[in-house]
Amino acid sequence: MNNMFAGFEAYCREDIKLTEAEFKLLCSASVERALRRKEVLLRMGEICKEKIFILDGFLRTYRVKEDGSEHIVQFSTEGSWTTEPESYHNATPSQYCIDALEPTTVMVWTKADFDALFLQIPRMKAFTDKMISDNMYINRNRLYTTISSNAEERYDEFIKSHPGVANRVPLHMIASYLGVSRETLSRIRHAQVKG
Amino acid sequence: MNNMFAGFEAYCREDIKLTEAEFKLLCSASVERALRRKEVLLRMGEICKEKIFILDGFLRTYRVKEDGSEHIVQFSTEGSWTTEPESYHNATPSQYCIDALEPTTVMVWTKADFDALFLQIPRMKAFTDKMISDNMYINRNRLYTTISSNAEERYDEFIKSHPGVANRVPLHMIASYLGVSRETLSRIRHAQVKG
Repeated sequence: MNNMFAGFEAYCREDIKLTEAEFKLLCSASVERALRRKEVLLRMGEICKEKIFILDGFLRTYRVKEDGSEHIVQFSTEGSWTTEPESYHNATPSQYCIDALEPTTVMVWTKADFDALFLQIPRMKAFTDKMISDNMYINRNRLYTTISSNAEERYDEFIKSHPGVANRVPLHMIASYLGVSRETLSRIRHAQVKG
Repeated sequence: MNNMFAGFEAYCREDIKLTEAEFKLLCSASVERALRRKEVLLRMGEICKEKIFILDGFLRTYRVKEDGSEHIVQFSTEGSWTTEPESYHNATPSQYCIDALEPTTVMVWTKADFDALFLQIPRMKAFTDKMISDNMYINRNRLYTTISSNAEERYDEFIKSHPGVANRVPLHMIASYLGVSRETLSRIRHAQVKG
């Protein structure tokens, strides 16, 4: 637990460039929460009221289609932020769910508290704006890969962009993230192992 | 020409809620430019230094794969903004091109001038931040559609989200945007016409 938190402190000090006082302020507004495997953080239709930093573990954001199939739009590993941005910013019912793929420890801020922090820590606001922009580029590039590449190219890109993730989730979840069938992905993996 | 500009003024006054003085300031920092059909606004590898508002006409943003195939990530019609955000914000070589699909009239701001406007018109900064967020939601939802839907569902979604666009661009460009083959899309359109 102390190690996780030390990682968060280093990230805040070095990456966000918070002062010690700002870091303490940020932490004092947060609540730490331990999630069991499969525990749900956000359901479809709920309003997402929280910003989340993952100290340890692994979350996914996904949406369930009318036919019951699940489609994963994001994997979030330790050391990263997550939320459901549209629901969080506009207070609208979420079209996505978030749950834990492993036992996970998160820090959680309510929107009201995080907005208040922006006034007290202008650097935090600038950092968050930059994260939103970066997220936009990542999504555009992922969209480009999805429309321009075949299943094998998409899988190779995933392995590059998500080091270590492929070993932590079942094959059908990677297939869901890539938008390919489990059978296709299974064939690609077998061919690569043999090749 | 006057009509186009009247539309821009109405948009600035009603949607962005600019005062008359702010609107004049915004316009005074811009340059109007007329583009021929197929004229290029941004090449891959160039740094995107401009923010663009389309008064009249139609642009596309696309990327060319190593194999020479073109993949369209965005159609931008009159009354909307465009830029290549990653290159624009980070001053990095653009991975995308922007060109005109029809004779097009745009208003153009350099990044330096637009950043200066943010200091003079705080409302413009808030509006731009909201556009970036909205863009993120749109891209996430488009990604969801792309990974969760078959070619026919994707085409139907495109027709709904891009009213009028399907009649303005050749079939192979819609196929490129959807990430499906021209043959598949042609089959879907024929079946829908017959159905």
